[in-house]
Amino acid sequence: MHASNSEGPVPDAVGGIDLGGTKIETVITDSAHRVLGSARHPTPTTGGPADIANAMAAALTEAARAAKLEPAQLHGVGVGSPGRVDSAAGTVSRADNLPGWYASFPLAAALQSALGTTVTLGNDVSVATDAEFRLGAGRPYRSLLGVFWGTGVGGGLILGGEPWHGRGGAGEIGHMVIVEDGRQCPCGRRGCVEAYAGRGALEAHARSLHAKGEKTKLFELAAEHGRDRLTSSIWARALEHGDKLATKLIDRAVLALGAGIASAVNLIDVEAVIIGGGLGVRFGEPFRERIAEATAPHLFNDTDPPAIRLAGLGDLGGALGATLLVER
Amino acid sequence: MHASNSEGPVPDAVGGIDLGGTKIETVITDSAHRVLGSARHPTPTTGGPADIANAMAAALTEAARAAKLEPAQLHGVGVGSPGRVDSAAGTVSRADNLPGWYASFPLAAALQSALGTTVTLGNDVSVATDAEFRLGAGRPYRSLLGVFWGTGVGGGLILGGEPWHGRGGAGEIGHMVIVEDGRQCPCGRRGCVEAYAGRGALEAHARSLHAKGEKTKLFELAAEHGRDRLTSSIWARALEHGDKLATKLIDRAVLALGAGIASAVNLIDVEAVIIGGGLGVRFGEPFRERIAEATAPHLFNDTDPPAIRLAGLGDLGGALGATLLVER
Repeated sequence: MHASNSEGPVPDAVGGIDLGGTKIETVITDSAHRVLGSARHPTPTTGGPADIANAMAAALTEAARAAKLEPAQLHGVGVGSPGRVDSAAGTVSRADNLPGWYASFPLAAALQSALGTTVTLGNDVSVATDAEFRLGAGRPYRSLLGVFWGTGVGGGLILGGEPWHGRGGAGEIGHMVIVEDGRQCPCGRRGCVEAYAGRGALEAHARSLHAKGEKTKLFELAAEHGRDRLTSSIWARALEHGDKLATKLIDRAVLALGAGIASAVNLIDVEAVIIGGGLGVRFGEPFRERIAEATAPHLFNDTDPPAIRLAGLGDLGGALGATLLVER
Repeated sequence: MHASNSEGPVPDAVGGIDLGGTKIETVITDSAHRVLGSARHPTPTTGGPADIANAMAAALTEAARAAKLEPAQLHGVGVGSPGRVDSAAGTVSRADNLPGWYASFPLAAALQSALGTTVTLGNDVSVATDAEFRLGAGRPYRSLLGVFWGTGVGGGLILGGEPWHGRGGAGEIGHMVIVEDGRQCPCGRRGCVEAYAGRGALEAHARSLHAKGEKTKLFELAAEHGRDRLTSSIWARALEHGDKLATKLIDRAVLALGAGIASAVNLIDVEAVIIGGGLGVRFGEPFRERIAEATAPHLFNDTDPPAIRLAGLGDLGGALGATLLVER
């Protein structure tokens, strides 16, 4: 037993940062994955990668202090990042949902310098999938598809008890085609799942229909709650108010998710599908059931559907998954 | 060296049977997978499983004799079968493309009794994928998707150097949804790849358009060549004749394959896609190129497309794959 932890590193405490398009979630855990502290900061919407790295360091520092630690005392910090992540080089490029982040930025080095401990980068969706598999709703299964229904629609795969990354780009269930020549997707292609179900695409669609005269409370609700985007909570409130436009678009999103998930299951036949992400976590159980129902008509082996479960780690899944990047 | 092989088993000679909807392909190979003999018989279109088993035994016997062997001298025989295959029980059920084959039939026992050697059953698409991976166009790769474009559209997966079967039903690329609420598929669902690209669906579609007055030489060509179905060769001839209806339907099929293959690659990010099956093998290189072009617009990682290759083993792939089921 050590008399004090205040001087040197605390071997079993690690940090995790989940870098999202709207918020930065951070968490400090011990070796049993218990949460010692956490903090959430908004993601900067202006500036560039260096500003975002500063915001990430500030959020992680707040979480560490909530755990009565300084960042430099952590055994290490893991980061789940969007965009193209080069873990070996410690860089991130093409994070399209973040301001000014197209070129490669040395995120690991920037954070290491700010935090005084080693930083390991991973893909946001991969670490969230791994978290659900190892700590969350995916624990009973050896193969699963994680579906992260948020600003985009991300996916992660565990096959035979191991993450499957393919050539590095696997899991893009959001860009499976469910309507050839269908709606324009934020990715630039047409008819992808995300074109119908991603929060970004939903907001653009709602804005366009509203501009054409369709009535909706979505934008009033956003203004009332001081939001300049249609967050998961705003969509949930609009549905609770019986808003017709919101209901129509979310109904369509559920059908798109069902078709995409069924197509994925027909191809890889996993034991379970875990539904997470901002919208998935916020909408919760009734939508898990509705997504399962939307999947059923498209399943080839319809007598043996996969388990469809809600993510068990909620909003902290990404940050908890990021902590798993740190070798203990 | 043995003076003669005529009395006992020949340890290194095995048989393979590929049971298709229109033909039964059989092959005899040595331990280096060299073909010692082969034979092709038509699949019975009337009767039931016992009649089909008899036809399979007759075809395998002919192949064995072409190799100057009796079936009982083979170390074993592997079978690639459609339908639901229970390898452990040696049974096949629900082979929808074969006459009267819904209930479970003890195919392994029936063939063992007829051939006098042990018989191992596998899924037709899985063994064909394994054959391409181990012996054919898939040899340079560790992960691949086999796409068998024939009466239906089947698929098989090799991930990280091993077959991936999921819970037993993986690989159904033919039943990935590319058009929600689209064309009726032979599987009973709507908008699957197979609804646009499978030879069965193509023939039904052509027949329906022809009955409505659209001109086509497809059925004349079939009659001229003594066929009661639109075989791969009949489709190929119609395309060579510039038949408008055939061209339109095959153009649509290529687009459907492209969307389905791209969706699959977006999800599992394999190194290679191998195009086989009756239509795939018959149409050959120009269509490999066209399928690759139809895939490109839907690929999420479009700067790094997978290799798209024609099956290297041609019509014998299924039977060669079946020989791999026999443990040597």
